[in-house]
Amino acid sequence: MRGQAQIRIIGIDPGLRRTGWGVIETDGVRLSYVSSGLVTSTSDEDLAYRLRELFEGLTSVIAASGAREAAVEETFVNENARATLKLGQARGMALLAPAMRGLAIAEYAPNLIKKAVVGTGHAEKRQVQAMIGFLLPKARFDSADEADALAIAICHANHRGAASLAKRIAKVEARG
Amino acid sequence: MRGQAQIRIIGIDPGLRRTGWGVIETDGVRLSYVSSGLVTSTSDEDLAYRLRELFEGLTSVIAASGAREAAVEETFVNENARATLKLGQARGMALLAPAMRGLAIAEYAPNLIKKAVVGTGHAEKRQVQAMIGFLLPKARFDSADEADALAIAICHANHRGAASLAKRIAKVEARG
Repeated sequence: MRGQAQIRIIGIDPGLRRTGWGVIETDGVRLSYVSSGLVTSTSDEDLAYRLRELFEGLTSVIAASGAREAAVEETFVNENARATLKLGQARGMALLAPAMRGLAIAEYAPNLIKKAVVGTGHAEKRQVQAMIGFLLPKARFDSADEADALAIAICHANHRGAASLAKRIAKVEARG
Repeated sequence: MRGQAQIRIIGIDPGLRRTGWGVIETDGVRLSYVSSGLVTSTSDEDLAYRLRELFEGLTSVIAASGAREAAVEETFVNENARATLKLGQARGMALLAPAMRGLAIAEYAPNLIKKAVVGTGHAEKRQVQAMIGFLLPKARFDSADEADALAIAICHANHRGAASLAKRIAKVEARG
């Protein structure tokens, strides 16, 4: 007996040089690894065309993945405004690509993602990667960006039920 | 006798709530106003779908404009990281939309734009708007964002010759 239909989730960890992505499948309880990888941009290309590379790469990945929901990290807002602006531009691609395909898109803060995977918001990168190996035994990834993207997808798998419930309650309340 | 073919330039002033755009035509010396307007996003929509509204709106405007070159403001990097991130995301749309259509895209710092229009980098918004009325007598705009977008286009009209020359020189030098 299956409680819920299986659903594929793509997690995206945005960055201008490389954007990590990871696809998992969940039936509400169990999680399984589907695929993961990196979308990169050519560093000697003009900014606008680097963003195009990211957007087109992510669009292809999402189309091939069969994902119906996307989760994107709420990028850490640091003290370097120039870096934040750059990250914002890459993050725009990570949000636009799934929106152009009509996916439901959720955003999660970095410490919520760590908490969902390791149990604490202050985990180190190594701990996150070790837990992903445990939660998704079939996962194969070469980079920290892919691991982070899978962590984002796991976070969404854990929260999507509660998030959709909260949205439904808000809509009912708005109706009065 | 015409020195150069006429070319249309679209200037874009990016913002999440509203992105201003302005199209001008130049033959290298003379400038003329073509059109201008705003692309807005619905504030109660999710961020990813607001970005999609901006991207689709700009894509339509660029297609209709006949512009072959685009100029985008190098957004002012302020002390509010959250605002910078938001602006970065909107700016991503302002760069991606012309890149998807293969336009040449230039970026200009705010004080360079003011200098191109008013003659000084420390001009006030009113001065910029007054000078646009003088440089483009047929210009019709209702908002500061449209005026800024036209200023960006004028800045590019003044600099595009020098910029393309600098690129050609750099290419020759790179060849050795």
